Amino acid sequence: MTDLVIREDKGAVAHLTMNSPGSLNALSDAMLAALKARFTELSEDGAIKVIVLRGAGKAFCAGHDLKEMQRGREGADHGRAYFADLFFRCAEVMQMIPALPQPVIAEAHGIATAAGCQLVASCDLAVAAEGTRFGVNGVNIGLFCSTPMVALSRNVPRKVAFEMLTTGEFIDAARAREVGLVNRVAPHDQLAAETEKLAQTLAGKLGAAVKIGKRAFYDQANMDLAQAYEHTAAVMVENMLWRDTAEGVQAFIEKRKPDWAE
Amino acid sequence: MTDLVIREDKGAVAHLTMNSPGSLNALSDAMLAALKARFTELSEDGAIKVIVLRGAGKAFCAGHDLKEMQRGREGADHGRAYFADLFFRCAEVMQMIPALPQPVIAEAHGIATAAGCQLVASCDLAVAAEGTRFGVNGVNIGLFCSTPMVALSRNVPRKVAFEMLTTGEFIDAARAREVGLVNRVAPHDQLAAETEKLAQTLAGKLGAAVKIGKRAFYDQANMDLAQAYEHTAAVMVENMLWRDTAEGVQAFIEKRKPDWAE
Amino acid sequence: MTDLVIREDKGAVAHLTMNSPGSLNALSDAMLAALKARFTELSEDGAIKVIVLRGAGKAFCAGHDLKEMQRGREGADHGRAYFADLFFRCAEVMQMIPALPQPVIAEAHGIATAAGCQLVASCDLAVAAEGTRFGVNGVNIGLFCSTPMVALSRNVPRKVAFEMLTTGEFIDAARAREVGLVNRVAPHDQLAAETEKLAQTLAGKLGAAVKIGKRAFYDQANMDLAQAYEHTAAVMVENMLWRDTAEGVQAFIEKRKPDWAE
Repeated sequence: MTDLVIREDKGAVAHLTMNSPGSLNALSDAMLAALKARFTELSEDGAIKVIVLRGAGKAFCAGHDLKEMQRGREGADHGRAYFADLFFRCAEVMQMIPALPQPVIAEAHGIATAAGCQLVASCDLAVAAEGTRFGVNGVNIGLFCSTPMVALSRNVPRKVAFEMLTTGEFIDAARAREVGLVNRVAPHDQLAAETEKLAQTLAGKLGAAVKIGKRAFYDQANMDLAQAYEHTAAVMVENMLWRDTAEGVQAFIEKRKPDWAE
Repeated sequence: MTDLVIREDKGAVAHLTMNSPGSLNALSDAMLAALKARFTELSEDGAIKVIVLRGAGKAFCAGHDLKEMQRGREGADHGRAYFADLFFRCAEVMQMIPALPQPVIAEAHGIATAAGCQLVASCDLAVAAEGTRFGVNGVNIGLFCSTPMVALSRNVPRKVAFEMLTTGEFIDAARAREVGLVNRVAPHDQLAAETEKLAQTLAGKLGAAVKIGKRAFYDQANMDLAQAYEHTAAVMVENMLWRDTAEGVQAFIEKRKPDWAE
Repeated sequence: MTDLVIREDKGAVAHLTMNSPGSLNALSDAMLAALKARFTELSEDGAIKVIVLRGAGKAFCAGHDLKEMQRGREGADHGRAYFADLFFRCAEVMQMIPALPQPVIAEAHGIATAAGCQLVASCDLAVAAEGTRFGVNGVNIGLFCSTPMVALSRNVPRKVAFEMLTTGEFIDAARAREVGLVNRVAPHDQLAAETEKLAQTLAGKLGAAVKIGKRAFYDQANMDLAQAYEHTAAVMVENMLWRDTAEGVQAFIEKRKPDWAE
C-alpha cells in the first residue's frame, strides 16, 4: 500500500503521489484502498494543514482499472455484487476529500479522465499543467460517467458538463480554468512549484480557521439562504472566540504579525 | 401539425424545425401542441438517438404569440383561465426536453427571446450562429420573463441571469457561450454543419448509455452529495451489466472497435 | 443615522452612500443599523424603483469594524453574546437585499473585502470600477469568512469561491466579472455614470413587473424544476392580468410606446 500512494511531507503540506504509472494511475481496488488509507491517516494528522494529490508518470489518473473490472464479471452474478461494491468504494473515496479537515489540491498533468477527472473535480482546489486534458469519456466505450458527473456537475455549468459527458471529448487546461474545473494553470515544468506555492499559502493560515471554514463551505452549499446564514453565523461566533483569532485580529489592528499558538 | 414542426431524420438524428417564419416561430397554442406531439412521438422512437431543434426563417424563436395572448383576454375572467392553461402547457413542453430519452440540441440563429431563449436553455446542448441574440426581454413590455428564468437561471450565473431579466437587453452568441447558455458558436453558414457534427458524435455513442446517463444527469442535480452518489452508483452497476458495455470495455482493452448489438 | 448612510434620490433611483470613509465604510454596529433603517424605509417607498449602494471615500467597504469587535470581547462571556448578535444583525442586513422589492445595484470601487465583498455578492447586480479588488480575506487574520461565503458561493463557481476563501487573495474587477461576481466594469471616472445608466434602464421598466419578477427569481432558485415552473407560471398569470401589462403587450403589437398608469 505504501508504494501505491506515496506520502511525502514538506512542512505542513502532505504530498500524495498515486504511483502506478504503468496503468496511468488507474483507480484499481488496491489504489482505492491506498487512497482511503492515506485519507484516513491524514484526517487524524493534526500536523498536516494542506494535502496535494498528484500522479506519477505521464498522467494524473485515467480512471477505473478496466481490466480488473472485466475480471469482476467472472462471478455467478456476472459482477453485479463486485461492481456495486466497487462504485461504493470509489464514491466513498471521492466523498472523503471534501470531508477531510485539510484542503486538498489536485496537481493535474497529462490526462485526467473518467474517475480521474472526478478526482480533480472532487478536490477543493486544482492546479493543472498546460496541455493537461480532462474528460469524462466513458460514453465512448458504452459506460456513461454517471458517478464522475456528480462531482463534475458541481464544478462547471450545466451545459458544459452535459457536453463533456455525452461527447466524451476532452477539454484542455485553459478551458478547464474557464469553466471552473481548475483554479490555476502553469507551464508543465512549473506545475509542482505553482502547486507548492498555493499549498504553502494555505499552510500559512491558521489551520483551525481553514478547517472550520472548509467544513462550513460544504455544509452550507445546499441550504437555503436563511439556514445557511444561521449555520455559518454560529461557525463565526466559535471562530471569533479562539485565542489565536483574537490575536490575529489584534495583530492586524496593530499592523504586526500575529503570534499564533497553533 | 406536421407542417408546424417539420421532422426530418438523418440516420439516428431527428431534426425538428419550427416552421412559422412569419411569426418568428412564436410559441402559439398550435406550436406548443405541435412540439408536444413531436416530443411525445420521439420519446417512443427507439431508432432516434439525438434530436436537433431549430427554427425556419430569420429566427430561432421569438417567444409567445402576443397577438394570440391578447385575444385570450376576451373571456369573462379576462383570460385568467386561458393564461394559466397556456403557461402550464408551455412549462410542460419545456420540461419534456430534459425528460426525453434522447439529448436535444438547440440550433439557434437570429434571435432567441423570452420563451424562445427558455427553449435554448431547456435543451441539453446548444449551438449558435455568430450574431445570434439571446434575451429574456418580456420586462420591456411589462411582462417579466418569470417562467423563462427557471431554465435560464439553471444555465448561467445568478447575476448574469438577473441582469438579462431586468434590463431586457440581449447578449450575443459569444457571450452566451462564455456564460454557459450555449456550447458552441459557428459562422452562420456553418451552423447546420456544426450542429450536425455534434449530433452525429452523440449518435455514434451507445444509445442506451446516453439515455441512462441523461436521465441520471438531471435526477442527481438537486440531490445532496451522498444521495447523488448512491443514485448514480446504482445507475453505473446497471450500465456495466449490459452486454454492449461489456463488449465496449473489452474492445477498448483490445484496441479495436466495439461490436455493438444496439 | 442619516449621515452614516446618505440617501439621495434621482427620479426613481435611490442612491445610498455608506459614509464612513475613515473606516473604509466598515460595517460597524451603527453602519449595520443605518443600512437596516434605509432598507426598511425603502422597502415601503413605492416611488423608488431601483437602489444603488456605494461607499464614500477610497473604498466600497472593508468589512466588519475590527476594533469594535475586539471591544466586544470585554464582557463576562468574552463576547459570545455580542458576536452572535452581531453576525445575526449582519446576516439580516445581507438577506434584506434580495428581499427588497427593488433591484439593488452595488457600485463598487477601491476595495470590497470580507463582509464588504459579501455586500457586493448579496446585491442583485454589481458594477465595478477597473482596479477594484475583491476578497474574502478574513482567513489572513484567523477569522474564516464563513458568512460572506454564503453570498459569494451563490455567485461564483465552487472552486473559485474556495480559492478566494482559503488563500485570502484578491481578484480584480475584470476577473470578478469573468466569474460572475459583478456584471459590468467601467473606468474609475465613469463608474457613477455607468451605474446610473444601468439603474435608469431598470427604472424605465414597469416597476410592478420588476418587483414580482425579483421576488420570483429568488423564490424559485432552490426549487426543483416542476415546483419552480408551477410557482413562476402562477406569477406570470398574475402579471398578465395587470392593466399596465395588457397595455404593454398591446403597445408592442402596435409598435408604439406603452401608456403606463404606474
